Amino acid sequence: MREITIDHLDDIARGAAILGTGGGGDPYIGRLLASSAVRDHGPVALVPLGEVGDDAVVLPVAMMGAPTVMVEKLPSAEQVGLAARTLATYLGKELTHIACAEAGGVNSLIPVVAAAQLGLPLVDADGMGRAFPELQMVLPTLYGIRATPMSIADEKGNRGVLDTVDNHWAERLARSATIDMGCSAMISNYAMSGAQARESLVPGTLSLCAELGSAVRQARAEHGDPVARVVERLGGRKLFTGKVVDVARRTVTGFARGEAKLSGMDGDAGSEMVLKFQNEHLVAERDGVPQASVPDLICCLDRESGEAVTTEGLRYGQRVTVIAAPADPRWHTPEGIDLAGPRYFGYDIDPVGVPA
Amino acid sequence: MREITIDHLDDIARGAAILGTGGGGDPYIGRLLASSAVRDHGPVALVPLGEVGDDAVVLPVAMMGAPTVMVEKLPSAEQVGLAARTLATYLGKELTHIACAEAGGVNSLIPVVAAAQLGLPLVDADGMGRAFPELQMVLPTLYGIRATPMSIADEKGNRGVLDTVDNHWAERLARSATIDMGCSAMISNYAMSGAQARESLVPGTLSLCAELGSAVRQARAEHGDPVARVVERLGGRKLFTGKVVDVARRTVTGFARGEAKLSGMDGDAGSEMVLKFQNEHLVAERDGVPQASVPDLICCLDRESGEAVTTEGLRYGQRVTVIAAPADPRWHTPEGIDLAGPRYFGYDIDPVGVPA
Repeated sequence: MREITIDHLDDIARGAAILGTGGGGDPYIGRLLASSAVRDHGPVALVPLGEVGDDAVVLPVAMMGAPTVMVEKLPSAEQVGLAARTLATYLGKELTHIACAEAGGVNSLIPVVAAAQLGLPLVDADGMGRAFPELQMVLPTLYGIRATPMSIADEKGNRGVLDTVDNHWAERLARSATIDMGCSAMISNYAMSGAQARESLVPGTLSLCAELGSAVRQARAEHGDPVARVVERLGGRKLFTGKVVDVARRTVTGFARGEAKLSGMDGDAGSEMVLKFQNEHLVAERDGVPQASVPDLICCLDRESGEAVTTEGLRYGQRVTVIAAPADPRWHTPEGIDLAGPRYFGYDIDPVGVPA
Repeated sequence: MREITIDHLDDIARGAAILGTGGGGDPYIGRLLASSAVRDHGPVALVPLGEVGDDAVVLPVAMMGAPTVMVEKLPSAEQVGLAARTLATYLGKELTHIACAEAGGVNSLIPVVAAAQLGLPLVDADGMGRAFPELQMVLPTLYGIRATPMSIADEKGNRGVLDTVDNHWAERLARSATIDMGCSAMISNYAMSGAQARESLVPGTLSLCAELGSAVRQARAEHGDPVARVVERLGGRKLFTGKVVDVARRTVTGFARGEAKLSGMDGDAGSEMVLKFQNEHLVAERDGVPQASVPDLICCLDRESGEAVTTEGLRYGQRVTVIAAPADPRWHTPEGIDLAGPRYFGYDIDPVGVPA
């Protein structure tokens, strides 16, 4: 895949929602926005991470906020360009590439919108290899790349630039602005050189999204097992199959926080799984015992169709299979664990990984 | 007064605290910051408003936040310059003058610090002729001058630029950032041309501050009545003399909000006055009947010394005289009343003015 056409968007959105581990936004909304942008501006060139030149100016763009809000207050196309242009002006630099900050149903496709609008190529990579809720939680932070100067823009035309002493301060100030802007905003941050991008990003994410999305679609067409195909491709494992019997969800401090209870089915009958989330799934417990946790991926998929169920989309009665898959190995370094391990989120447990 | 030397600072701080109507920051802190800046960089040229050229680039600077916090978390000198430089860079313009956004013990002297640091002249004027708690509450708003692009900076080195669709949005986003920054921050906003400054600012504020401060000082030296001298100079009237018997104060939503009860003394014995404030005094009620309200000035002065008592400085047992003085007439237009009249602050009364 060397360019993204309208025909690719369904698969990318489907696959990105899986890597989004419950967050990163609704794939339906991501696909709508990207379809419209590609229809208006034409296909987007996709550049492998290894081909980005040292001096490239790479700008990630993303939605920030609570996915529960994004499904009701849709981002505007203008907002995407506004965030990128505001930062480019502040930096006084000519942009050469757009990138993805994270993988997710919206956040893998917002960069497609930006690239189409600005007529720039998109880098086939992202900053996490998954989605995480806070903006300092990207691999570039581990490489000392600063989140700021960053821009933030809302659908009304308000915009701002933040330039902070560290990435945690960027998160704090941007989160407050996001809440004021109505709990969802467009951001552009971690502007970096091509050399920095090659070192710090996760390569091939958009291709992987397309591949996952296509595998799920094909497995369905062949009456196969879409969930098994995802597990196989990601090198993960099935944790639990069950029915959603309770969802406690509140949108607080700008996040969708809560937990979902699943009552076991099939081989898991008689057991219960609890998924704890902050935009993304953070910990999966079976009968009170953690089975997987950040930084590894916990994905909740429709048991039959293999489609990802986002945390804001969890509903009573859904039949789902929960799978775990290994995160980029850099997330398992002590610095990675400090940044996005279970203790950062207030769970007093060591990370529960995915056995190889 | 064509330049501000160290010798002027005491009087300016004292007079500014009177015009600050309880807000605008502690005059002691304002004087400390300005003394240090003038000692390091030399006297600051003071330019009458009428002499500012059409094409001048005038930048107001101020502290934003809760005065209750400012007395504990002092602004840093670097912070003042950081706010002004951040905005100048974003604007891509060469600054020619610094100005005051409001009158107040800190906010009349922060611009002296900025002017000294940047080697620029200071305009003898301000945006209100008094202090008000929210940033859209300046006369330039009535002339359609935008608050943004504005900058905000804290003492840790965090900074940002906001560019909003209106001045109310600027207040909202800047207030949240101020709260995150610890409830006080340095801002620079309402960048304007010399022509706009001449039209929209209140002329002569710094000279008036110096004059008021000197009148109070001299009246004290002559064993006269400092409060009467202030009333006379401002064309105001005494409302009440009493002892502070209760202060209810809380720092919420980034403001010092509350009310103070005074038990009458001298000719006011047997009566009670309640002062309601949000950083600044908003309404003064005598035995439940409003005697004065925004937009006019309500100043609480030490009964003996004539020194202003700021809202964060109100303490049980203080003997004070409350006076009212007329605001700039533009505040009494329907637009001015909408912007900063009692109903904006939630008091369902018409403005109670000062009889001529």
